[in-house]
Amino acid sequence: MRRQVRICMLGAGRVGRLHSGTITRYVPEATITALVDPADSILEETAKDCAIENKYSSLEEALDKASFDAVVITTPTFTHRDLALLAAGQGLHIFLEKPMALNLAECDDIIETTEKNGVLLQMGFMRRSDPDFMAAAERIRAGEIGEPTMIKTLTHGPGLPPAWANDIRTSNGMLAEVTSHDFDTIRWLMGSNIERIYVETANFKGEERGATAKHFYDNMFATMKLESGALGNISGVCPCDYGYDARAEVIGKKGIMLIGEMKGQALTVTIDRDQGLVTPIFRRWPERFAWAYINEIKHFVECILTESTPRVTGEDGRWAVAGVLAGTRSFLEERPIYLKEVFEAEDPAPWLAGD
Amino acid sequence: MRRQVRICMLGAGRVGRLHSGTITRYVPEATITALVDPADSILEETAKDCAIENKYSSLEEALDKASFDAVVITTPTFTHRDLALLAAGQGLHIFLEKPMALNLAECDDIIETTEKNGVLLQMGFMRRSDPDFMAAAERIRAGEIGEPTMIKTLTHGPGLPPAWANDIRTSNGMLAEVTSHDFDTIRWLMGSNIERIYVETANFKGEERGATAKHFYDNMFATMKLESGALGNISGVCPCDYGYDARAEVIGKKGIMLIGEMKGQALTVTIDRDQGLVTPIFRRWPERFAWAYINEIKHFVECILTESTPRVTGEDGRWAVAGVLAGTRSFLEERPIYLKEVFEAEDPAPWLAGD
Amino acid sequence: MRRQVRICMLGAGRVGRLHSGTITRYVPEATITALVDPADSILEETAKDCAIENKYSSLEEALDKASFDAVVITTPTFTHRDLALLAAGQGLHIFLEKPMALNLAECDDIIETTEKNGVLLQMGFMRRSDPDFMAAAERIRAGEIGEPTMIKTLTHGPGLPPAWANDIRTSNGMLAEVTSHDFDTIRWLMGSNIERIYVETANFKGEERGATAKHFYDNMFATMKLESGALGNISGVCPCDYGYDARAEVIGKKGIMLIGEMKGQALTVTIDRDQGLVTPIFRRWPERFAWAYINEIKHFVECILTESTPRVTGEDGRWAVAGVLAGTRSFLEERPIYLKEVFEAEDPAPWLAGD
Amino acid sequence: MRRQVRICMLGAGRVGRLHSGTITRYVPEATITALVDPADSILEETAKDCAIENKYSSLEEALDKASFDAVVITTPTFTHRDLALLAAGQGLHIFLEKPMALNLAECDDIIETTEKNGVLLQMGFMRRSDPDFMAAAERIRAGEIGEPTMIKTLTHGPGLPPAWANDIRTSNGMLAEVTSHDFDTIRWLMGSNIERIYVETANFKGEERGATAKHFYDNMFATMKLESGALGNISGVCPCDYGYDARAEVIGKKGIMLIGEMKGQALTVTIDRDQGLVTPIFRRWPERFAWAYINEIKHFVECILTESTPRVTGEDGRWAVAGVLAGTRSFLEERPIYLKEVFEAEDPAPWLAGD
Repeated sequence: MRRQVRICMLGAGRVGRLHSGTITRYVPEATITALVDPADSILEETAKDCAIENKYSSLEEALDKASFDAVVITTPTFTHRDLALLAAGQGLHIFLEKPMALNLAECDDIIETTEKNGVLLQMGFMRRSDPDFMAAAERIRAGEIGEPTMIKTLTHGPGLPPAWANDIRTSNGMLAEVTSHDFDTIRWLMGSNIERIYVETANFKGEERGATAKHFYDNMFATMKLESGALGNISGVCPCDYGYDARAEVIGKKGIMLIGEMKGQALTVTIDRDQGLVTPIFRRWPERFAWAYINEIKHFVECILTESTPRVTGEDGRWAVAGVLAGTRSFLEERPIYLKEVFEAEDPAPWLAGD
Repeated sequence: MRRQVRICMLGAGRVGRLHSGTITRYVPEATITALVDPADSILEETAKDCAIENKYSSLEEALDKASFDAVVITTPTFTHRDLALLAAGQGLHIFLEKPMALNLAECDDIIETTEKNGVLLQMGFMRRSDPDFMAAAERIRAGEIGEPTMIKTLTHGPGLPPAWANDIRTSNGMLAEVTSHDFDTIRWLMGSNIERIYVETANFKGEERGATAKHFYDNMFATMKLESGALGNISGVCPCDYGYDARAEVIGKKGIMLIGEMKGQALTVTIDRDQGLVTPIFRRWPERFAWAYINEIKHFVECILTESTPRVTGEDGRWAVAGVLAGTRSFLEERPIYLKEVFEAEDPAPWLAGD
Repeated sequence: MRRQVRICMLGAGRVGRLHSGTITRYVPEATITALVDPADSILEETAKDCAIENKYSSLEEALDKASFDAVVITTPTFTHRDLALLAAGQGLHIFLEKPMALNLAECDDIIETTEKNGVLLQMGFMRRSDPDFMAAAERIRAGEIGEPTMIKTLTHGPGLPPAWANDIRTSNGMLAEVTSHDFDTIRWLMGSNIERIYVETANFKGEERGATAKHFYDNMFATMKLESGALGNISGVCPCDYGYDARAEVIGKKGIMLIGEMKGQALTVTIDRDQGLVTPIFRRWPERFAWAYINEIKHFVECILTESTPRVTGEDGRWAVAGVLAGTRSFLEERPIYLKEVFEAEDPAPWLAGD
Repeated sequence: MRRQVRICMLGAGRVGRLHSGTITRYVPEATITALVDPADSILEETAKDCAIENKYSSLEEALDKASFDAVVITTPTFTHRDLALLAAGQGLHIFLEKPMALNLAECDDIIETTEKNGVLLQMGFMRRSDPDFMAAAERIRAGEIGEPTMIKTLTHGPGLPPAWANDIRTSNGMLAEVTSHDFDTIRWLMGSNIERIYVETANFKGEERGATAKHFYDNMFATMKLESGALGNISGVCPCDYGYDARAEVIGKKGIMLIGEMKGQALTVTIDRDQGLVTPIFRRWPERFAWAYINEIKHFVECILTESTPRVTGEDGRWAVAGVLAGTRSFLEERPIYLKEVFEAEDPAPWLAGD
């Protein structure tokens, strides 16, 4: 019988439950031997939904009572560093959800510790495992649209994130929790790091939805000059309410490539000629990136089994965090920020409460 | 100043009004010098809408009081032959709406009389002037998809036609009033005449909509073997209520071509993730074939000014009528009918009341 | 640890390999404990591709040497009856690829034997497990488009099937090997059996591709009257070369529903304004129905684990075979055939060589 | 007979020829009584193409020898002010192509002079007359997507503009010649003026195409904060080579609206399953905005005939010029620029050669 990778899930919330379900239902080469969450009811629900037997309230407890080869970390950002360091210290491979950490120092800690302990580190940028985006990356690399000159990406999420995630003092806000994906996508598809960034934000729904954190924003444009000379733009809207929307357009010297679509199913109906054609939209990210979530976990497991390097590394996670910090500083200071300003700053994120 | 073709409109109803508006608004090279309709209120409305001064209740009256070079005939099918013969006898060029006539003898009369009098005869198969369909025809001819092996066309019309038009005894019904277009499209795009035809019909809405004629049907499939050996299929639905729908697919030995779409405007909205994306549909045929209606009238006028032969002739009209008669006979006799059976029949349409 | 259903794969060819790969990669709740194929090289290839250890040349050998709870039959049609009877006799649950069998008597044998032995029988009509088609069925049932009045489906397959599958004497030809899916889809979506059927065929590529069987055809239209009074039409093209194409349109009294699309990936590129926009098409059926293939096997396994009845039964398989036989007879006799003619015939398929 | 507006065309180049053709072919309510261009060959070509008899080398000559009620100005930007003032002084109504002028002082001169002379002034922002964009504006105003919070527009033009138009010293460059449309669209659809703007540019093709002007750029992002608090983003690419591309997305508190599409014709072909589906793209702007060009001229003529105010005024033109100047200053100074900085500057465009 084939060897299975044993996994401990750290976090049983929305994303933890998504990954747990994926592993249980579609990944025969892995098995969940521990599920960890400090919140009892969430722990019970996800365990039941995914038929997981071993439930624990902390990684420490799980380490004590269960056996596993790897951890999947889906807890809040501010816990990433400590959990990753503890896991790496135990020789466990790490799948880490985005954003990697709150700041660059935490990223450095994670990268160094995983390297020192010889464990794998894969970041949860699932677009890197999405068939549409993967084919796009490959075809851009192959030169199909010529040298890339401009990229536009968007991530519009339907619901308001939890309070800790929409407050820049505890999570770096939407740029971190939502736009991280876009920062990584731009680096990946354009084959270039970001040189400088300018961000505009707007707040239209905060008050009525109870998001009262200072500097809360629900609409955002980030405009970038890349080191290659190309331009990048991201739009972020969260909560957008109308569905989950993640698309990209890349312009090259020879042509244009459109990646993704809003249509969530090939099923169009019309019953009223004054209304017109009606087609499902992707309601939430698990629908849009169903294959990506399966593929990224399979890739992680495959890398463990074959001792290969994952396709999204800590270095990629760190660059996305740098983009988040530069972008946040840009809208706070109302000017374009060079990434090197962030890398060279003594305190690159003074807005963080506990920093 | 440029010479203008003077036109007498015969019929001020829906289609007459559409053509009148087209000429008035978009065809500087023509001018309407007479509008004819026996129904006063319809005559007045269309005259007002299109700023036409000269209104008459009959072609005879118009001939007596106005001057024109051509007629556009949009009256009911059963009047086509007599009007066409009268106009041709006066040396007037003729634009004739589909279906050409009730039976083949009437078609022959029209063809012979126009030829004898040296006047132009153009049939109102507007798809022949539609940019999508024209490009399709050209690209099929050029061999892009290889020898055509199969075609599927559809015309689904939103509303119930008037009583005379949905009774096979007075108009040959939907096959004539709606499907005529498809018969012509198939001959044109496939470059082949029809050899035999099998028709199935269904009646789902007749009773509730007051269409009580015997043999009334609102859903229809026509399946054909063409002389070239290729196959053809038409679907007809009228009233379909959901909008106006006219599309085609052509399969060739090398590939497939899709012509037309349901989307009526490039404007997509979503405000509810449970509903999804909403896009306008073409509500009625004037929207779907807006350019085709302009183009076909301009083509007619251009043919008159340059003494050229129109791109849709009486022969094309006659073949469509033959398809209508064979198709009607097929569903009445529940068997495939060869076109030659229609051409050779003493009475090819015994169901016609006055035939 | 969760109980796994042990499966013996009968057939290691294209479809057998597809199902084997699906089970191995995406179905943790099942495991393949035997792979059977008389052709050594095919057996080796699929076993290697799917990491299957136990390989046998016959079901008898597998029964002797391995343990399993169920069989997945993907062998040629003419072997279905005997394999199914042998498996059922051993108490094995059966997943059976379409078409069910060569004729109604074989279908009856399979249905009776599985019932007598109390084993499950699921037909491989994967559209019944496709998210698009399933949502369509549900929404039609819920009345969204009103009473269904007309359905059009198509299956166009890219490649020429093997010789036994394109010869009506050994397999009932395209109607069986390709169009079976459409017959089932129509019954399922329309909620009605077929009353009569008329089929036209054409042969454009046979000679040049070496398909020399008498009555070979590569283009086909089947037009049906259903018992409900609604109409149905199927187009079949095989080989169509241009990709894999499976779509449907359902018209109801209130509206229209379009199911499926040709676009195989949300990735559009243009690099030449004279060519335009280029988007991937589904190349083969495994791409188009990726989720359906996973879902149908998961459903089969779930039914075994929970002792439930599969959603596609032997009765469904038998009706599709009846459609195949009536359709074949229709184009041979050039007339519409009532299904009851098939059910009441002494020899419903006299064209079968060994019948 | 209906009264016709007599028009003098100023400029017989690409845009002048487009408008001349539109009037000649689709606008019976107007007639071209003079065509003016200093370049003989261009004058001859356009006159021949549009069957215009009276040709002149200057407006002065045309005023001397011909009679007309209005002028359509399509000459280079730097000539707009003087031509508009001369025409207005003669009591002629003015249709003026975008951009309105080189700077705000010229805009003021034009607005004041037309007002003083009581002549109409309509700006050539054809999107205001495009059916898709008009329906979008109406539906946004009606509140369908809620209060608008974000807009993204793009104009990507296929070819390199003439030297005077890609040099910021003679024309303000791409922001003026291409992006003017987007500035107007944003103000119009969002119902708000721009408060500040940040622009990033890149130059990828200049050298190889012979565009050697200092500060030449062919890729551009403009990010804006509007007075309403909403955000705006424009992408500009020229030359993009792949076709003509003009689309917009508007996000509101309740939903999203997508305006326009790349597909230029409803005609999809596939003949190679490795390539996929191929659909025409809009090759040039006259194809994309065919109806808009007809509608805007008809609107201008209608306004003259009915003494109404055009839907796009000099004020709209002036705001777009202000956006151009602020945007240009932004990328030169590498910082966001407030529009009020432009309005209050002594020399708002110091980069202009003759300013």
